[in-house]
Amino acid sequence: MKRLTSPAELHTMSLAELEQMAGEIRELILTTVAKNGGHLAPSLGTVELTLALYSVFDFSRDRLVWDVGHQAYTHKILTGRRDTFHTLRTLGGITGFPKRAESPFDSFGVGHASTSISAALGFLIAAEIERVERKVIAVIGDGALTGGMAFEALNHAGQLKKNLLVVLNDNEMSIDKNVGALSEYLSKIRLKPQYHRAKKEFEDFVKNIPFRDVGEKILLAANSVKAGVSAAVFPGAMFEALGFTYLGPIDGHDIGGMKDVFTRVGVINSPVLIHVNTKKGKGYAPAENSPEKFHGVGKFDKTTGQVLKKKSPPSYTEIFSQAVIDCAARDEKIVAITAAMPTGTGLKKFAEKFPQRFFDVGIAEEHAVTLAAGMAAGGLKPVVAIYSTFLQRAYDQILHDVCLQNLPVLFCLDRAGLVGEDGATHHGAFDLSYLRTIPNMNILAPKDENELRQMIFAAFEKNFPVAIRYPRGAGLGVELKAEPEKISWGKAEVVEKNSSADVTIFAVGTMVKNSADAAKLLREKKFFVDVINVRFVKPFDAELIRKSARSSKLLVTCEEGTLNGGFGSAVAEFLADEKISTPLLRLGIKDKFIEQGSRAQLLDICGLTAEKISRQIIERLNEIIFGFLTVTT
Amino acid sequence: MKRLTSPAELHTMSLAELEQMAGEIRELILTTVAKNGGHLAPSLGTVELTLALYSVFDFSRDRLVWDVGHQAYTHKILTGRRDTFHTLRTLGGITGFPKRAESPFDSFGVGHASTSISAALGFLIAAEIERVERKVIAVIGDGALTGGMAFEALNHAGQLKKNLLVVLNDNEMSIDKNVGALSEYLSKIRLKPQYHRAKKEFEDFVKNIPFRDVGEKILLAANSVKAGVSAAVFPGAMFEALGFTYLGPIDGHDIGGMKDVFTRVGVINSPVLIHVNTKKGKGYAPAENSPEKFHGVGKFDKTTGQVLKKKSPPSYTEIFSQAVIDCAARDEKIVAITAAMPTGTGLKKFAEKFPQRFFDVGIAEEHAVTLAAGMAAGGLKPVVAIYSTFLQRAYDQILHDVCLQNLPVLFCLDRAGLVGEDGATHHGAFDLSYLRTIPNMNILAPKDENELRQMIFAAFEKNFPVAIRYPRGAGLGVELKAEPEKISWGKAEVVEKNSSADVTIFAVGTMVKNSADAAKLLREKKFFVDVINVRFVKPFDAELIRKSARSSKLLVTCEEGTLNGGFGSAVAEFLADEKISTPLLRLGIKDKFIEQGSRAQLLDICGLTAEKISRQIIERLNEIIFGFLTVTT
Repeated sequence: MKRLTSPAELHTMSLAELEQMAGEIRELILTTVAKNGGHLAPSLGTVELTLALYSVFDFSRDRLVWDVGHQAYTHKILTGRRDTFHTLRTLGGITGFPKRAESPFDSFGVGHASTSISAALGFLIAAEIERVERKVIAVIGDGALTGGMAFEALNHAGQLKKNLLVVLNDNEMSIDKNVGALSEYLSKIRLKPQYHRAKKEFEDFVKNIPFRDVGEKILLAANSVKAGVSAAVFPGAMFEALGFTYLGPIDGHDIGGMKDVFTRVGVINSPVLIHVNTKKGKGYAPAENSPEKFHGVGKFDKTTGQVLKKKSPPSYTEIFSQAVIDCAARDEKIVAITAAMPTGTGLKKFAEKFPQRFFDVGIAEEHAVTLAAGMAAGGLKPVVAIYSTFLQRAYDQILHDVCLQNLPVLFCLDRAGLVGEDGATHHGAFDLSYLRTIPNMNILAPKDENELRQMIFAAFEKNFPVAIRYPRGAGLGVELKAEPEKISWGKAEVVEKNSSADVTIFAVGTMVKNSADAAKLLREKKFFVDVINVRFVKPFDAELIRKSARSSKLLVTCEEGTLNGGFGSAVAEFLADEKISTPLLRLGIKDKFIEQGSRAQLLDICGLTAEKISRQIIERLNEIIFGFLTVTT
Repeated sequence: MKRLTSPAELHTMSLAELEQMAGEIRELILTTVAKNGGHLAPSLGTVELTLALYSVFDFSRDRLVWDVGHQAYTHKILTGRRDTFHTLRTLGGITGFPKRAESPFDSFGVGHASTSISAALGFLIAAEIERVERKVIAVIGDGALTGGMAFEALNHAGQLKKNLLVVLNDNEMSIDKNVGALSEYLSKIRLKPQYHRAKKEFEDFVKNIPFRDVGEKILLAANSVKAGVSAAVFPGAMFEALGFTYLGPIDGHDIGGMKDVFTRVGVINSPVLIHVNTKKGKGYAPAENSPEKFHGVGKFDKTTGQVLKKKSPPSYTEIFSQAVIDCAARDEKIVAITAAMPTGTGLKKFAEKFPQRFFDVGIAEEHAVTLAAGMAAGGLKPVVAIYSTFLQRAYDQILHDVCLQNLPVLFCLDRAGLVGEDGATHHGAFDLSYLRTIPNMNILAPKDENELRQMIFAAFEKNFPVAIRYPRGAGLGVELKAEPEKISWGKAEVVEKNSSADVTIFAVGTMVKNSADAAKLLREKKFFVDVINVRFVKPFDAELIRKSARSSKLLVTCEEGTLNGGFGSAVAEFLADEKISTPLLRLGIKDKFIEQGSRAQLLDICGLTAEKISRQIIERLNEIIFGFLTVTT
């Protein structure tokens, strides 16, 4: 591949050179992701689009904001990260998403959907106030466009009438097949003959625009072109209503065609939306055929497209999936909601089994939650399955629409805790804390996959809001009980009990196993440790904490979540309120953002492996026993 | 006024009777709000709309979901709450917003904007699954329609193709004058002659629909009517693109006309949006002329429209307003953002002074925050002024777009703590807790209005995220220093210091005064209490807490916010982490939702008056001194 000292070199490259480069970049992405895992299909879809953008704009001056950013691998490769690209998504390596600290070309860090138009508008306003000549471009997928804040931003941009350029990267997918009326509308634009006619007319028209002509003229002319087409079916009426000039759709794999449009559109001095059609997974047949499988993928065999899976117990996701189906088979009031992730959350099987009771709302977590509240108020028992990190989007709806009304909505938070290679934007580190602030909310965390199953059974029996959080990946391989077992609401489970223990660990979810392993290590050193499976972070088992505080020299809380306001914080509050002065050691994620790495690496960094847990307990115990404890009363 | 035993009686009332009733209801609303304060202008605007809805639909079976709900007074009066309406917004009285616990006709509790379409869709799906014949209607203002989740819901509803009826109550206002491209688009619909022609054609067309005809036919015919009009300008193309049949605009004060449309539209078996034009404040000249002043208003003189204001020190809002202007005059990088509340937040004066640096984004808190992040990444210093309760909407954006990137955005949270008569949906009880979970966030709370001013000065000097929270209403009347005073970042202020004190109170914001007053009461009883103004909830003054813990028998934290995860929780965490066993008494809002009442009443209920604070301290001190303290180590 031609070595670039600056992406500006793309400006002078011929179309043939650019196309050759596209092939080479595609190969590099494919090889790297096959080895490291990553977002293959989205990034393969935007190779030509990225090259076209870089060969027209100068992003050392202009600003490019990617939405979500899982499609930005070409962007990374073009901007000084080709030689380190093999470290993609590894500890200390190149991140899977744009990140400001990584490159000046990563103008805005992303990971969650639908933020790009807002951020881009911010850059545009800043440039204007700072009197800097700068073009600002947001690239947003048709999936991310269903997120409400993208609409909020369009609505604002349309009114401001500044020359924001929004590139709609339409591949008919969010992660799974895209849904919603807007998606249908975009499909119509792609498919209906009159649209193609309009498109043809538009393209002829664009080709005849003299370079660097005045924007105003183009707009006037563009309007007259449109007038020739039945406007009701003219593509983009929706965006035009929001004050955008709509152009397209154009072929997102035709570098020359895109360069043409990007070059000419630069002169329009008002908001423009360019609708670009791309193919997710483009150029790699397995990904083209199964774009959702290759959206975010683990290591795979490049030749066959076979994903390399270690043989492992069923994942928490699969257990969730089956448990909800089992419950729904018995109770027809149960309905399920996902925000654009039927595969990721495991609801796809539910959808096949109960299509009338399944709702994919698109990337729209806020609507998902309030929809569930409405369903619950209407008598149903909805389960909302959203990853921990994405549910942050709906904090207000959980509080105001579900919990204030104490409605029976079940939240299932997959990918809680440290998710590994997706990094800081995707860790589910905050759920215990943000959910715990909300009155009426019940928060559960299972220690293994059978307990997840049992908790789902128990939660559907309740008439109030419940959240269950569980980690990414495989379960522990425990036996699954088909029938409901008794789970006493608000009660913890004693996992390990010694006749006389110095220490009691209250462990949340994933940390039960690590704590039990730590207890084993400690026993070898003659420290006797009780281990409690917390099960209920809210309402927690106050009685057991009180009892353990009486009998232990040290209480320990251990959770895969932030220490600020988490379960350990709840125990600290409780001890203070109850006037109990037993020392408390809180283990969890410190008050900072955690970067990418394998889950094992990150747990180690956070001090949450069995070894680190045991070491921290010994340190504290030594302080207590040998008198480093400050007692001021 | 005719006494209704059931709102169904409206079905048989003549138009003349309904119109007479409209007048009487308007009078009752006016009289009550003049006495109690409340949302006058929105509710005056929907009297006829509500009567028309109730005279066509049967809401004992059908479901009506109001958006925000500040326009639902007529709805309350018609559904069994006429005789108690005089208790509006008082402790234990009728609430200012629909509330499920209050009436079966309040199908869904509201208060925050843009939730109605989601909830209504939930009811519709529930009815279908439960096999209940039921019409579901959402009434949403043009302001609330700018909220992203309304768009998410439209997008979903448009795809589901169920017979949801959305009534767009267009009064060209959110609270202040509505903004955004969508608003301009709706204005065009109202103003352009071709729209009126389209409207006329539509109305003629609707009048000719035989009652109870088949929906399909109507749609076909409606389409043919549209074909006669230039479709690019046909009103509602935007909604049609989202899969809705658009009807309107119709006159929202013409009961007969609306009854006609509501009756006939019932047969359309797909999503319909009826665009209704209303006048905010209708029928009361002072409110018609100043709808933003009479949006949410305190007590006023009904005859003159003069708001009855007690002479009081400037409000925190006014101080914020002036301080930001003062800073912006010195630093042209400072820009200000509001989400549809220039008047409420006090940014209106800023907008007049610096129109190019002021941004009202509409009811769009998520976009507001990410826009600010983009601006900050682009080199500006944005201040985002959003009420504490509404900022809940942007939890994810604060975390993911601002704090993860450690960008210098200043959040000013007005109405933090207990807001009084607006009740459970509006208290700013959670901000300290939800903001404290976020790494890199700095959280400040001023003890008085001068400190607010000084904190704003100090915050603009910083290169990281800062949130300042302050209460509704008047300041304490302290002297305002024009020039910046030194505020040491992360340091608390000693307000009251005794040579030897039993107790140290760490008080947050508003609670500094109440704690100082409590200290006075305690001194009379020979308890000597130090009072600390916390100033920084994050990062808090660890050194001073450590020192105080050493010298006091009891530490007390006092905050106007939830105890779960709040400042007291931070101190409990800190004491545990630092192995300090000094007893801690945490005063604040318990883990439940607080209803409406005056601020004084609610502070009393929450135990946060000087008297209650002192009493709780004495109780705990007695326990400590007379040995009720459980020490287990």
